[in-house]
Amino acid sequence: MAAGELEGRRVLVTQSDDYMGPPIVARFREAGADVTAVPGRLVDAAAIDGLVEACPEPDAIVANLAAGPSPHVVAEIEDEEWDELFDVMVRPLMRIVRAFAPGMIARGAGKIVAMTSAAPLRGIPVTSAYCAARGAQNAFVRAAGLELARENVQLNAVAQNYVHNEAYYPDSLVETERFQKSLARNVPIGRLARPEESADLALFLASSRSDFIVGQVVPFAGGWATTTG
Amino acid sequence: MAAGELEGRRVLVTQSDDYMGPPIVARFREAGADVTAVPGRLVDAAAIDGLVEACPEPDAIVANLAAGPSPHVVAEIEDEEWDELFDVMVRPLMRIVRAFAPGMIARGAGKIVAMTSAAPLRGIPVTSAYCAARGAQNAFVRAAGLELARENVQLNAVAQNYVHNEAYYPDSLVETERFQKSLARNVPIGRLARPEESADLALFLASSRSDFIVGQVVPFAGGWATTTG
Amino acid sequence: MAAGELEGRRVLVTQSDDYMGPPIVARFREAGADVTAVPGRLVDAAAIDGLVEACPEPDAIVANLAAGPSPHVVAEIEDEEWDELFDVMVRPLMRIVRAFAPGMIARGAGKIVAMTSAAPLRGIPVTSAYCAARGAQNAFVRAAGLELARENVQLNAVAQNYVHNEAYYPDSLVETERFQKSLARNVPIGRLARPEESADLALFLASSRSDFIVGQVVPFAGGWATTTG
Amino acid sequence: MAAGELEGRRVLVTQSDDYMGPPIVARFREAGADVTAVPGRLVDAAAIDGLVEACPEPDAIVANLAAGPSPHVVAEIEDEEWDELFDVMVRPLMRIVRAFAPGMIARGAGKIVAMTSAAPLRGIPVTSAYCAARGAQNAFVRAAGLELARENVQLNAVAQNYVHNEAYYPDSLVETERFQKSLARNVPIGRLARPEESADLALFLASSRSDFIVGQVVPFAGGWATTTG
Repeated sequence: MAAGELEGRRVLVTQSDDYMGPPIVARFREAGADVTAVPGRLVDAAAIDGLVEACPEPDAIVANLAAGPSPHVVAEIEDEEWDELFDVMVRPLMRIVRAFAPGMIARGAGKIVAMTSAAPLRGIPVTSAYCAARGAQNAFVRAAGLELARENVQLNAVAQNYVHNEAYYPDSLVETERFQKSLARNVPIGRLARPEESADLALFLASSRSDFIVGQVVPFAGGWATTTG
Repeated sequence: MAAGELEGRRVLVTQSDDYMGPPIVARFREAGADVTAVPGRLVDAAAIDGLVEACPEPDAIVANLAAGPSPHVVAEIEDEEWDELFDVMVRPLMRIVRAFAPGMIARGAGKIVAMTSAAPLRGIPVTSAYCAARGAQNAFVRAAGLELARENVQLNAVAQNYVHNEAYYPDSLVETERFQKSLARNVPIGRLARPEESADLALFLASSRSDFIVGQVVPFAGGWATTTG
Repeated sequence: MAAGELEGRRVLVTQSDDYMGPPIVARFREAGADVTAVPGRLVDAAAIDGLVEACPEPDAIVANLAAGPSPHVVAEIEDEEWDELFDVMVRPLMRIVRAFAPGMIARGAGKIVAMTSAAPLRGIPVTSAYCAARGAQNAFVRAAGLELARENVQLNAVAQNYVHNEAYYPDSLVETERFQKSLARNVPIGRLARPEESADLALFLASSRSDFIVGQVVPFAGGWATTTG
Repeated sequence: MAAGELEGRRVLVTQSDDYMGPPIVARFREAGADVTAVPGRLVDAAAIDGLVEACPEPDAIVANLAAGPSPHVVAEIEDEEWDELFDVMVRPLMRIVRAFAPGMIARGAGKIVAMTSAAPLRGIPVTSAYCAARGAQNAFVRAAGLELARENVQLNAVAQNYVHNEAYYPDSLVETERFQKSLARNVPIGRLARPEESADLALFLASSRSDFIVGQVVPFAGGWATTTG
């Protein structure tokens, strides 16, 4: 990666203490960005005001929003967990774009990268609530991304799976023989991504090198999913 | 269509007074189905109990759930309209599958057809809230559909666009020259579908002729969208 | 299936002695179609003339074209096998549509259903030559199908995988424990399709019940692939 | 772009005098690569031997293969033009991967980026021959890319459309009012890409920053296509 590729760029990273937050903050700082890292979930509308105060005019935003995948068969999905997934991951994504897009449009440029999931691209049994919420994010990115394209604001998503992170792939799981077998069988590349590899894709999408890419949901899953869906 | 293709099959149609409800009820009855048509939105959990009372052991369900597309640029999406779309279209879909799938599994067979939208397959600017909600439905159908596949319960979606219905394409709109030009330009087939054509696809997916099709989101849009996304 | 759904319709089935030919001929005759079954590969341009002579004005065509999947790692693909796949499956598909579409356009209606494969929708290692050829077919169906849409000629594909047929799934393979385990692991529905189930989808696409579906590649793989790609 | 991002890397660019060849050669040299640029079409098997002689051990290959889109309605496609598209774009792609993948596997690493097209992702009427050939390329990249993933060889495609290049978008076309209107209507971003923007994506896929991306067909079309298909 270019040491100074984001030199002087103001970047806002949300829920920076969770999911892809820590590696993205580290990677973007390494690339010279002036990163505002805001930890915590963004459930309430007021939390978005906090973002705006913390970083009123970002050049780029990494909308990192995560809640546990909470695996359940459909018959056992609880309303509370369903609502939590949508409250933590879906509505805040819309609110972030709603809050910051007008300023980016006014300034004539902006980048928003949503860290979502490849899970809905193929569909994962016993994870349908999570797939629904991540699918809502991906669909929003596509539609809003096409809308913002003409304004020189690029909104895209990193739809990842099999990226090493403590939230979804704790070492205690990864080290089991069962997991390693499943990895060998299901993931063509045969390994988990290092978190900084996903951060590198986010960095590309946040840089001026990808201005023609808009409204796109980029699968990042070592070949587990290569098509959108 | 075969006159008696659904002869004697108990079919539950939700929100039967809206969107694709009326043509589906008509078409399925013509095909011999014993249709229970339940009008009205299904926002509350209690509304699902009403469905179960009305039709405790359906052979097939048409999960027809709709709210207006409410076109707005991202900057003008209101929380209330966003929540309405998810409350009317997304959470009820999960609750319907959650309520009826166990019985279908116990009886060894079942069909659920969700009437969704092709909008999220391509993404439509100024309609991102609607695309997000329909995208959540499609992603849920894929994941839950794969989960239920082995139980001989087939859950699929008709992802339609450009189907003539009063909710989205009132005659007052359709008859304008502007609309006809847009149709000619954007829809390869150059016309709207008649509602009964969409009902025919739903009927195919609710019949025993499609038992190998599971977790699938079928574009139905006259060529406007042919790929999933 | 409706006994007389294709009553009196002239249907041409190509390479009728191979792949999906036999079950399609049987199913379509059962549905009342006047089927012209033409056996053999269609490598030469002259072979297409033979089709036209055999059935000059078909209402529907099932373009069933197949050659063995010939599994090889990329390093061992031979030019001859590569060319055979394209000569048997790809060029003839174009020539069939080229030969018959003008007549269908002149008569104001027509149906063409290509029996292709879901393999390119996900990509199968050690089968890349076959995936390339089937991918060419699917891409041709999409583009030519959109072109013909306005003429009331519907061209679509059944992109199948895991359909029981002697060419790809001989009983000697299917009965092995290894195959059954792989089926349980990779195919959500957990079984092979019966050939007549695929024929039922072809019949739906060849009938007047699917006039709004154009240029579409329909995955038919028991959940192994549900998205296009 | 990082000045030295490909410092010292041996890169082979095929058909370097056509399509995306010139901007890729320029961009990669700017990034420090040791570029071997081989002009001319690669129709014969012997042409591949020439590539191997010119650059026996490339770290990365940009498989740039192009022939004119030759717009024709299906009824007017000629065998000669069909065969030319496949001879120039499709078979050579397989032969390039076949010739160079074993060495990359032996050396433990390698990158292959195919410059293909987004045309087959949506399907373009009156361009079905071109869509078929580009679709074959994309399908081959997906399957072979998944096969090579475990060997630390990354094969991916840039599926572009609306990229300014003399072959497909000569200035005489671009400057017409008709073209500009069509651009505004069909391409969400509302402009053509500069060739170096596409080269930047190719560079990302040829660099060590994208090692987890395999078998992927990346749409690059300013929002005209965002999903694979």
